[in-house]
Amino acid sequence: MIYLDNAATTLKKPESVIDAVANAMRTMGNSSRGTHEASLGTSRTIFDTRIKLAEFFGADDPENVIFTCNSTEALNIAIRGTVHYGDHVITSVLEHNSVLRPLYLLESESKVSLSFLSSNEKGDIDPEEIRELVRPETKAIVVTHASNLTGNMTDIKRITEIAHEYGLLTIVDASQTAGSKKIDVKNMGIDILCFTGHKAMMGPQGTGGLVIGEGVDIRPFKVGGTGVKSYLTTQPEEYPARLEAGTMNGHGIAGLNSAVDFICSVGLDEIDRKEQELMKRFYDGVKDISGIKIYGDFDAPRTAIVCLNIGDCDSGQVSDVLAVDYGIATRPGAHCAPLMHKALGTVSQGAVRFSFSYFNTFDEVDQAVKAVKEIAEELKI
Amino acid sequence: MIYLDNAATTLKKPESVIDAVANAMRTMGNSSRGTHEASLGTSRTIFDTRIKLAEFFGADDPENVIFTCNSTEALNIAIRGTVHYGDHVITSVLEHNSVLRPLYLLESESKVSLSFLSSNEKGDIDPEEIRELVRPETKAIVVTHASNLTGNMTDIKRITEIAHEYGLLTIVDASQTAGSKKIDVKNMGIDILCFTGHKAMMGPQGTGGLVIGEGVDIRPFKVGGTGVKSYLTTQPEEYPARLEAGTMNGHGIAGLNSAVDFICSVGLDEIDRKEQELMKRFYDGVKDISGIKIYGDFDAPRTAIVCLNIGDCDSGQVSDVLAVDYGIATRPGAHCAPLMHKALGTVSQGAVRFSFSYFNTFDEVDQAVKAVKEIAEELKI
Repeated sequence: MIYLDNAATTLKKPESVIDAVANAMRTMGNSSRGTHEASLGTSRTIFDTRIKLAEFFGADDPENVIFTCNSTEALNIAIRGTVHYGDHVITSVLEHNSVLRPLYLLESESKVSLSFLSSNEKGDIDPEEIRELVRPETKAIVVTHASNLTGNMTDIKRITEIAHEYGLLTIVDASQTAGSKKIDVKNMGIDILCFTGHKAMMGPQGTGGLVIGEGVDIRPFKVGGTGVKSYLTTQPEEYPARLEAGTMNGHGIAGLNSAVDFICSVGLDEIDRKEQELMKRFYDGVKDISGIKIYGDFDAPRTAIVCLNIGDCDSGQVSDVLAVDYGIATRPGAHCAPLMHKALGTVSQGAVRFSFSYFNTFDEVDQAVKAVKEIAEELKI
Repeated sequence: MIYLDNAATTLKKPESVIDAVANAMRTMGNSSRGTHEASLGTSRTIFDTRIKLAEFFGADDPENVIFTCNSTEALNIAIRGTVHYGDHVITSVLEHNSVLRPLYLLESESKVSLSFLSSNEKGDIDPEEIRELVRPETKAIVVTHASNLTGNMTDIKRITEIAHEYGLLTIVDASQTAGSKKIDVKNMGIDILCFTGHKAMMGPQGTGGLVIGEGVDIRPFKVGGTGVKSYLTTQPEEYPARLEAGTMNGHGIAGLNSAVDFICSVGLDEIDRKEQELMKRFYDGVKDISGIKIYGDFDAPRTAIVCLNIGDCDSGQVSDVLAVDYGIATRPGAHCAPLMHKALGTVSQGAVRFSFSYFNTFDEVDQAVKAVKEIAEELKI
C-alpha cells in the first residue's frame, strides 16, 4: 500500500517510537501513584517529555505542557475552559469540527456568540478581517495553523499581533503542523497551543496536549484522582494536575518522547523540506491534467497536502478506485471541515486529499501521479 | 523488583498485548477517516474490541461500548452527562476521587446535592442504607464495585435492586474489578459501567471505557470530529460517536483487544482464583505480626489487596523501606480515597497497599511477608 493519508494519521512511525512504547509496557508503573522505581520512573519519563515538548514548542515552563488523548480533547479543554457566558469568539471558516463543535456547543449553552474569518477563493484568510469582527465582548480567537483540507497555513504571528492589540486570548490548533513546521509559542504569540501526537509528530495514537502560556487560566475539564492533594474536593490549582485527571497514558507518552527525539535528530527543517518536495512533485505532476480541480494556495506557506477532485466525480469513488485498483490510500469526503467545504463549493462532492509524510518516497508520488492521470483519462471516456 | 502495586496499574502485561500494540503501530490508519485498508482495518479492530468487551461485560450492543483514555474520563462522562441541575445523588464513602470530584463539581456548579452510604469499621457498606438516603429528587447512585483502599467488594446486585425500586440510575466504578471479577451488567442491574484498561484488564495505559445500558441517555462530554456526519453542528446522536470525539487511540485499543483475549484464554475464574490465593497467602503471613493493623473485610468477597500499617509508622516510610531495602513496590499514602481514610482513621498515617496480579508468584508473596516481619521487628526496637 502507498499510504498518502498522513494528515489523518501517520501510519509509518519510527521504529524507535514503537520500541519506546513496547519498553514502557514492560517497565512502567503508574506515575505519581507510588514511591517505588516503576512509578517514579514513569513520572520521570512523563516529566522529561514535558521538558522536551516545552523546548520543542518554545515554551518556558514544562509544567504548562498538558497531556491529552488527542488534539480534540486539547481544544475542548482550551475553548471550554476559557470562554465565559456571554463572550464573543472569533474563529475562521478553515476550522475542523474539533474547533467548531466546542464553539457551537458554547453558543447553544452559554450564549457565546461567534464570528468567522472568511476565506478567499484559494482558501486563505486575511488577519486584518479580525478588526472588522472584534467587539467589546470578544474574548478569544481560535484559529488553525493550517487547514486540514487545503493545507493552507495561516499567518499566526500576524493574527496574534492583531488579536493582542484587542486583548484577545489566542488559541491555535496545530493538529496539522506540529512535527513538521516550526512552532515557537512565545515568538508567535500563541497563548494556548493544541497539538496531537499521532500525525506529523509521528507518535502513538492516544497522545496530544496543550502548551499554555504564562498566566493563562484554564478551568479544569475532567476532574478526578491526581495522586497528589487527595483531600482536596476540587482539582489541584497548579498545572499540569489541574488539567490532568486519572492515570496518564504513560505508554503513549513514552512513545511521544521518543518521537520528539526522532524529529530533533532528523531536524524539523529537513522533515519539512522533504515533505514539501514530495507535495510539490505531486502537485506539479497532476495540476495540468485535464479535468483536475485543485484546492488551496500553492504560492504561500503550506503543509504537505494536495486536495483535488476529478471533474464532477464523487470524491469517494475516486478514492475507492485509488485504494482498490492502485493500492493508494487517500481520504475522500467531508474532512470534518464543513465551512471550508462550503467556501470551496465541495459540500456534495467532497474532495480527495493526498497528504505526505517524511517517510514517503518520490517513487510513491510518481505512482500516485500516474494513477490520477489514468483515472482522469478513464473518466473522460 | 517485586511489583505489588497492581491496583494502581499492572506492570506486567501479556506479551501478546505488547505485540498487538507494536503491530498496530506498524499498520493502523485513522479509523472512520478513510476508505482504504489501513483506515478500515483500524475501524474493524476497534469495532471487534467493542464486540469482545460487550460480551465480556454481558452487554447486548457493542455500539454502547464507548472508549475513553481511562476510567476517570469514563466516570466524568457518566456522572456529568446524566445528572441535572437540582438532582440528588447517592454515593458512598468508599469512592475514589474519580467519582467524588465530579460529584463535588456538580454540587458546586449545578446545585446537585449528595448523600453518602457510610461504612462499618471493616469498610463495608450496607445497601439497605439507600432507603434512608433516597429522596424524591434522587436521580442516581454512583458506587464502586470494590474499594481501591481496602479491597472490599460491594454487593452491586443488591445495590441496584434497591436503587431500581426507587427508579435510580446505577453507575458503577469497576476500576478495581474489571478483568479479575465477573461483571455482567444486565444480570447485575448496572445502567452504566465505567472501567479502565490498564489495571486487571492487563491492557495498555490510555485505555478504558463505558458500557451503557439500553435506553440510557448520556449527554456528550467532549465534542469534535467524528469522521461521520461532518455537517452537523452538534455531536451525532447515536452511540458510540456521541461520546467519542477526535482520533481514537487505535494502538491502545488493539492492545486492549488482545488483553481481553488473554483473560478469556486463561479464564476469568482462574485469574481470580490465583489472585485470591496470592492475597490470602500474604494476609495469613502478616495478620498475626505484632503491631500490624490490617484494613478491610477478609470474610467477604474482595479483590487481591491487603492494606496495612505497622504501628503508628508513617505509611510512606514503610513503603520506602520496602522499595529501597527489599525491592518491593507498594503504594503508601492517601490513595485518592479521602472519605475511606477518614472512616478508617488513616488520614494522617495513610496506609501501605499490597496489591497482587495474576503474574505474581508465591515466592514474591513470601518475600513480602518476610520483609513486613523484619520491618515490624525493626520498628519495635
